[in-house]
Amino acid sequence: MVAELAARDKKLAGIGEDELVEIILKYLDPSKPYEHLPPGDDARDFLPRGPKQVFSSDAYSFSSLKLPWRTWRDAGWAGVVGCISDHFSKGSIPDIAMVSLGLSPSMSLGDFVELIEGIREVLTYYRVVYGGGDLNSSSDPWISASIVGFTTAKKPPRRYGARPGDKIVVTGKYGAMGIVSIDGVEEASRYKWVVEATRRPKPQVETSIVIAAHYRWIDASMDVSDGLSYTIHLMAKGSGLSARIDSPPLHYEELDEFCRDKKDPKRCVIERCLAGGEEYGVVLALPEKYVGEVTSYMDMYGVSYKVIGEFIDGGEPGKIYWRGREISVVGWDQFRGWSSHS
Amino acid sequence: MVAELAARDKKLAGIGEDELVEIILKYLDPSKPYEHLPPGDDARDFLPRGPKQVFSSDAYSFSSLKLPWRTWRDAGWAGVVGCISDHFSKGSIPDIAMVSLGLSPSMSLGDFVELIEGIREVLTYYRVVYGGGDLNSSSDPWISASIVGFTTAKKPPRRYGARPGDKIVVTGKYGAMGIVSIDGVEEASRYKWVVEATRRPKPQVETSIVIAAHYRWIDASMDVSDGLSYTIHLMAKGSGLSARIDSPPLHYEELDEFCRDKKDPKRCVIERCLAGGEEYGVVLALPEKYVGEVTSYMDMYGVSYKVIGEFIDGGEPGKIYWRGREISVVGWDQFRGWSSHS
Repeated sequence: MVAELAARDKKLAGIGEDELVEIILKYLDPSKPYEHLPPGDDARDFLPRGPKQVFSSDAYSFSSLKLPWRTWRDAGWAGVVGCISDHFSKGSIPDIAMVSLGLSPSMSLGDFVELIEGIREVLTYYRVVYGGGDLNSSSDPWISASIVGFTTAKKPPRRYGARPGDKIVVTGKYGAMGIVSIDGVEEASRYKWVVEATRRPKPQVETSIVIAAHYRWIDASMDVSDGLSYTIHLMAKGSGLSARIDSPPLHYEELDEFCRDKKDPKRCVIERCLAGGEEYGVVLALPEKYVGEVTSYMDMYGVSYKVIGEFIDGGEPGKIYWRGREISVVGWDQFRGWSSHS
Repeated sequence: MVAELAARDKKLAGIGEDELVEIILKYLDPSKPYEHLPPGDDARDFLPRGPKQVFSSDAYSFSSLKLPWRTWRDAGWAGVVGCISDHFSKGSIPDIAMVSLGLSPSMSLGDFVELIEGIREVLTYYRVVYGGGDLNSSSDPWISASIVGFTTAKKPPRRYGARPGDKIVVTGKYGAMGIVSIDGVEEASRYKWVVEATRRPKPQVETSIVIAAHYRWIDASMDVSDGLSYTIHLMAKGSGLSARIDSPPLHYEELDEFCRDKKDPKRCVIERCLAGGEEYGVVLALPEKYVGEVTSYMDMYGVSYKVIGEFIDGGEPGKIYWRGREISVVGWDQFRGWSSHS
């Protein structure tokens, strides 16, 4: 194996696939005792760890993950955590992950090792086994994670199942990524709290436990990966409903300060909470009569949340209303760039 | 949804992610009755279908998959079949797949639909459920497939477990991709049999059944994705052995014809059988006393194979010998290009 520390400036092109795979396996090797196929084999074998299994996949171009203040280590974390968040929103505990990479031959070995360390850190933090993956070269680097988890929920809550009158319960904290998307990366980089809050998104595994325990009552559930308004918009549209927002979700107190001197401070706050992405909270559609029971479990497990509004029958499906007016839903479209959704 | 047939020249950039996902779901929607999370949700749920599960992942840059005679439909097939082949080599039946894509905004809708149809065809052919995936934009398009399968084998055979004296049993047919890699794409394109044989690799599911039924006797197993010599080289090296080749594997009879007028026809044949890639046969390391029993099952299941040599103790680990001389192992390295392995 390459003596990495002595060769951190070396380019991947000068090292070659076999040795890079060895480095990956050195860093990501938490094999489980019950498995027979070792890391580096063509596949991994594992035992089902729950009555029902959940499978999800998420991929990113690194150019979209690499906020200027994110190191390669942070990008490795961010490239895997979205797939983990999908599991939490379905009441699943992620168990084993495949992570494939497309990297540039001009990447330095030092950056490569940092990236792998970031992947190891997120897998270790969430106790997910690294199962393997595939290494490719790409002039437009990317990461793809696929994770199998398990759940005790007979029917994990769907994305599209909200019913009229369901309360919109939102977990997680918002506002930082909204500043990035509305005010721009440069402006955002001036605020230490924004930088800190967006470096490494940390969804809460406890959310999954609360969801699995109450799946019968949860009409719909979706994690916030592309912005809160886009998430609520999709859930409403897919359920043939619209949504009324009554108050902002939990957000960073620095956001109130940021908005204090703006023309319409309340609008400034709500817009930045609704825009953004990668907050990885969960939006639940919950009948009013179950809100108390479910949120009492959230309190018990330390899951932060707020009831911010209601899914309503009336208005155009997918529309979001605030103070009686429609709020525009702007989201990132992989093929069209920033686009408004309706 | 876009009227695809009327808009096949339209670019993905003009269509947008949401509609493209709708098209994917329209084409790839074989939901199973026992599943609760529908296609298009953030994850899929499924029941374990065997005592032991197998998980594998494979990714490609389309630039490496798109032989000039491969349509996008063929490329979709080729981008998923490698992951299926991994399962077969471990005695696993692939069950549910996640397929993520990175595509260029300048790709036409017609090509996009062809690609999705190719993915559908390979999943349908092998009875694998489409579980979902993620859609991204990329200037260097790629495909990543992750598949969960199940096996009855308590210990699926590893890559690295060959023992001295083990026979090298090779399934599948060779020689066509060897012409592509040794004689070049242009020369290869002149031979109809080469074009036909390399368009859509078709590994045999029956191989998996034979392997699962005899896993106790199989010391090692690996599928041929990057060339036969590279596969044997890795298996030998990882087992601390070298390999002696006595005769070529099953190959296209047109290859004998192709080599007839060459200076050393036998060397011409063996070199083209050993080079190549994507043949997706399986190389087994099998103690001599079990060869008869295992191959009789191959005969029964219609799996074509040949015993081509032996793993030996002596020589340098990983080396391959033919007629008493070392054969050079040339394989494609993602970061260094064509490279010799040792």
